[in-house]
Amino acid sequence: MSNPILVEVTRGKLVESVHRGAFAVADAKGALRLQAGDVERPIFPRSSLKPVQAVPLIESGAAAAFGLSDEELAVACASHSGEPMHTTRVAAWQERIGCSVADLACGPHRPVHEPTAIEMIVRHEKWTPLHNNCSGKHTGFMTLARHLGAPVAGYQLIDHPAQSMVEKTLKEMAGLSGALPYGVDGCTVPNFALPLTALARAMAQFADPSGLAPSRREAASRVMRAMTAHPDLVAGTGRACTNLMRESRGIVVKTGAEGVYIAIMPELGLGAALKIDDGAGRASETAIAALLIALGAVRDDGAAAALARAAVPNTRGVAVGERRAVFEAFGK
Amino acid sequence: MSNPILVEVTRGKLVESVHRGAFAVADAKGALRLQAGDVERPIFPRSSLKPVQAVPLIESGAAAAFGLSDEELAVACASHSGEPMHTTRVAAWQERIGCSVADLACGPHRPVHEPTAIEMIVRHEKWTPLHNNCSGKHTGFMTLARHLGAPVAGYQLIDHPAQSMVEKTLKEMAGLSGALPYGVDGCTVPNFALPLTALARAMAQFADPSGLAPSRREAASRVMRAMTAHPDLVAGTGRACTNLMRESRGIVVKTGAEGVYIAIMPELGLGAALKIDDGAGRASETAIAALLIALGAVRDDGAAAALARAAVPNTRGVAVGERRAVFEAFGK
Repeated sequence: MSNPILVEVTRGKLVESVHRGAFAVADAKGALRLQAGDVERPIFPRSSLKPVQAVPLIESGAAAAFGLSDEELAVACASHSGEPMHTTRVAAWQERIGCSVADLACGPHRPVHEPTAIEMIVRHEKWTPLHNNCSGKHTGFMTLARHLGAPVAGYQLIDHPAQSMVEKTLKEMAGLSGALPYGVDGCTVPNFALPLTALARAMAQFADPSGLAPSRREAASRVMRAMTAHPDLVAGTGRACTNLMRESRGIVVKTGAEGVYIAIMPELGLGAALKIDDGAGRASETAIAALLIALGAVRDDGAAAALARAAVPNTRGVAVGERRAVFEAFGK
Repeated sequence: MSNPILVEVTRGKLVESVHRGAFAVADAKGALRLQAGDVERPIFPRSSLKPVQAVPLIESGAAAAFGLSDEELAVACASHSGEPMHTTRVAAWQERIGCSVADLACGPHRPVHEPTAIEMIVRHEKWTPLHNNCSGKHTGFMTLARHLGAPVAGYQLIDHPAQSMVEKTLKEMAGLSGALPYGVDGCTVPNFALPLTALARAMAQFADPSGLAPSRREAASRVMRAMTAHPDLVAGTGRACTNLMRESRGIVVKTGAEGVYIAIMPELGLGAALKIDDGAGRASETAIAALLIALGAVRDDGAAAALARAAVPNTRGVAVGERRAVFEAFGK
């Protein structure tokens, strides 16, 4: 059985390409509200895991001990674009905990924000691990290590206490037991695989933290406060996550590599998780927007609508096709 | 019925993403030698159509009248990387036919060759339509228009004689009749949709031109000579097309946007065409390499093998998964 087509890309009158995928929408107890495709196969959440990866940082007391601001926590949950607003905050935070860019386990990559990349090229500057979209998350792990009195070096390894705490937190929030399969993420930290149903349930805990122990409830609420207050820090200028969150105060959305997206909808008390089979980011953006519209979680005439149905331009800027969600697949 | 999985991408021990697709391998009479998936649905060949689009340029006598070199014909068949070796040749050719960059209907885009793009950024230069990967093909259309005494302006429109000749040539070589559905390509010219079986058959005419009328046979042979002699001009430094052709003298491969690839195999007298459902270039490269290996058309330990199975590195350059062809799907 193959997953349903969630997104199609047309040219002229024909469908040129299609993207299949699966998604699950669950409440905090794990009851499924909406689903499509194979939602039980383990998938890697990649960067959509970041809200969960930030929970131990707060729950452990590390965030309070080091006086982390909401802005810093937003960057800890970010796949940021490497703009100055991101990198300067990460660098200042590292200095406060007695660390530096040299302690980052993640490798350098070109800033996602193209004007920043171009400015750097013109100035003959090299990108560093600070520009890695995950540098905030890594600085969170370094802060947690400091607070635990554990070595900062090796914070990215599977047997470091920081990673053990992430796995334990994820399993508890997702309602899973036993060791989770994992792979190494692009930024070198472990990424744990789990079914979309379980990932959606974990995200629903942020939307409705009433069933969590007080310390975790507080941590989950702090993650939500930080992310919703600073959508520009969670992604960056012009990014889908930023635009969707900015327009829909209260909702959190977070992209992950290889076609993953999660959504946290406090007003509905629901979490959502989706994965495009082929890993395409153009499709995951389109699909999460359609899902939010189908759930009535966002306006149907703003940023989400613009993502759910967008013109495909040629190199002269003329529309020659469109990228669009197959709304029927989302029950709408 | 969904198409089979042709390529998978792993992380750790799990398959993270998959790419479905279809392909057809045919001889010049249209007999299918190998196939997978839905090979009868019309697909857009995109830039994989370029060898066919170059045929009228030669068959009409335009190439001879303007003394086009094999290098210029190779660039006419190229999705080039915008390196100086490409753009200087296109510019010189345009000057010879009394045209310039201002006559190009295609829009500007960043050169595919990143070092060229970076040099331009550092020098504060803007990319122009010359850097468009299709500028050679467009210059071919302009040359054809000049030779026919037709206006150069509008050469990209569906009712311009240059485009009518392309459609007629394609239909004859593909064994099709009636008007073909078309869309507008990224570079603004019409792109005609046809089944993979028909596209493979059209490509087989280049591999075995014995059934073609003499003038077309000569044109097809000239296209083959130009492309195989100059693999660096057909794509560019480090590109899959260039590497595959350089290693496998005599074979032509040509990529097209949205996950298309064609191959022309003179020793086997066969043509091949494949389309990845989701449009991913990483998958079409992997799949065409696997298909060439499965057909015994290339060595199984060189450039094709490196494309058919490649490490997925993290940002520190450590392999954390792999991208690999599902060889069973290719009958091997």
